[in-house]
Amino acid sequence: MNSVTNKLQHKINNKTKPLGSLGKLEEIALQIGQIQNTISPELKNPTILVFAADHGLTDAGVSPFPKEVTRQMVLNFLNGGAAINVFSKQNRINLKVIDAGVDADFQNHPNLIHAKVSNGTNNILERAAMTIKECKEAMNKGAEIVEEQFNNGCNIMGFGEMGIGNTSSASLLMSKITGLSIEECTGKGTGHDNDGLKRKKEILKQAIEKYRLNGDPIEILATFGGMEIAMITGAFLKAAEMNMIIMVDGFIVTSALLVAQMINPEILSNCIFTHVSNEQGHIKMLEYLNAQPVLNLGMRLGEGTGAAVAYPIIQSAVNFLNEMASFEDAGVSNRD
Amino acid sequence: MNSVTNKLQHKINNKTKPLGSLGKLEEIALQIGQIQNTISPELKNPTILVFAADHGLTDAGVSPFPKEVTRQMVLNFLNGGAAINVFSKQNRINLKVIDAGVDADFQNHPNLIHAKVSNGTNNILERAAMTIKECKEAMNKGAEIVEEQFNNGCNIMGFGEMGIGNTSSASLLMSKITGLSIEECTGKGTGHDNDGLKRKKEILKQAIEKYRLNGDPIEILATFGGMEIAMITGAFLKAAEMNMIIMVDGFIVTSALLVAQMINPEILSNCIFTHVSNEQGHIKMLEYLNAQPVLNLGMRLGEGTGAAVAYPIIQSAVNFLNEMASFEDAGVSNRD
Repeated sequence: MNSVTNKLQHKINNKTKPLGSLGKLEEIALQIGQIQNTISPELKNPTILVFAADHGLTDAGVSPFPKEVTRQMVLNFLNGGAAINVFSKQNRINLKVIDAGVDADFQNHPNLIHAKVSNGTNNILERAAMTIKECKEAMNKGAEIVEEQFNNGCNIMGFGEMGIGNTSSASLLMSKITGLSIEECTGKGTGHDNDGLKRKKEILKQAIEKYRLNGDPIEILATFGGMEIAMITGAFLKAAEMNMIIMVDGFIVTSALLVAQMINPEILSNCIFTHVSNEQGHIKMLEYLNAQPVLNLGMRLGEGTGAAVAYPIIQSAVNFLNEMASFEDAGVSNRD
Repeated sequence: MNSVTNKLQHKINNKTKPLGSLGKLEEIALQIGQIQNTISPELKNPTILVFAADHGLTDAGVSPFPKEVTRQMVLNFLNGGAAINVFSKQNRINLKVIDAGVDADFQNHPNLIHAKVSNGTNNILERAAMTIKECKEAMNKGAEIVEEQFNNGCNIMGFGEMGIGNTSSASLLMSKITGLSIEECTGKGTGHDNDGLKRKKEILKQAIEKYRLNGDPIEILATFGGMEIAMITGAFLKAAEMNMIIMVDGFIVTSALLVAQMINPEILSNCIFTHVSNEQGHIKMLEYLNAQPVLNLGMRLGEGTGAAVAYPIIQSAVNFLNEMASFEDAGVSNRD
């Protein structure tokens, strides 16, 4: 163990509480101290970036919601009416919405970042979702946006997404990268019934069998991803490069992380897995990454809502480390 | 279903999100709306009461910490250095500390309530922990303190505890009330090693075999409880009578609830189970009560820390219900 790890563990163990009795909070405190290389870490300007894009595969009927909902939900984010707005406001998290590739044009808004790569992906049943060039452009834009937030003083960041059809992209990426079957990687998304789920699985099986890929992460991402997923992948990589604390949300965001960790495996030490989604594949993604989530609330909404709801728990971890008295300070006897 | 339940479910289902996608938050929102009989519930003056008392059974060596720690930790609470101070401050929860029966006298302090019944319980190996009169006095004082907070405008309350040796009382109450064996009801408490745990179990087996009780909850409580547990039992009953939202913390607090629900089974509809403790018996207590906890963070600190850390999640439930846009309001298309 390096010296900061030793000092952190000593500080944690000497707080006025039974050894180990804060459980997961102690793990988070240790991790954040290690990331920041200090026994007095700080959370600064917490920010959630919600990336939105449309998906050509919706033409095949992979979602029970119409594609227009992507555009409508972006407007809902900008008007402050979505779940992510409510939770971000409650927990004082900055929120930015990014048009990564929505099939609509938006007026300027202080919380909107224009970064459209195209008006949505191709239908994967016909051709790769993106060209390699488009995919790299999306990744670069994601990285630029993170760097901007970093320059604004943010050191803890979460990503969210909105894109009707994007659980399909996430399932395809998951299956390709983990080697698990489409059956295991596919869930009901925003709310399929059993017939809808069956149809979705058939479409995804067709899609995954169509392509012979050699394992290059960018090629996999370009083939099966969405613009928002590619942008989040680039954002992940930049956030790790900037040594930020990264709050990992649910199924779609974690699919971007699956790609990012192929490119930079070290990224995982910066990640806090905020929750396990009720979307069936997510728990297996977390197992694949050997990740223990903070929350298990049966949520499956996306938008970064898992990260936003979990943020106060992360604050509690940092706060006990910085603010609790030690046995010595408080004159409390330790165990015999 | 009554009319408010129908209206609440309709309001929840029409928020701009896939049906059911906020999981446990939707259950909490529904429950709080039902408790307050409104589709626009509010959380007012959240308060945690930490009850402290000493235990005669510590003479038998049931804890690895010396008994003096109860007094020292009360001073730590008053000085703001304990975990419950940090989490309450973070989440803007009022905190009061109650001397229910600590073997020490405390000076006045704005956050301390003097309610001492005696200087601690008897050693249960020799005689019942309390007389019936002492037990009822403790319950009445707990009720009075809750009523005072209610009159101050509090409608959501959590209870915490401090008392070296009190996991032993909780295990005995649990075993007597649930019928589970001492083996199943006893864990390491604040941090026994395996030898310590074995000794603790032997002592508790001796204690439970000593008494033949007829199933009267007050007699059970007087025999095995602590002053703080009896006071929490009275506090639970009054909080239910005042129709407050009750945040249930970990192992010891839930043992008081086991007694309270024998007296008033209706109390459970007011309870939110904030976390499952890492103390081994707690998960079985929750199963006995058919309760699903909000958090599972491997915590086992007591003091009400589970309730304090979970409070923002409860806020998130109320906030999405009150603040999110509906499909109609936001002009977002619902599923096909």
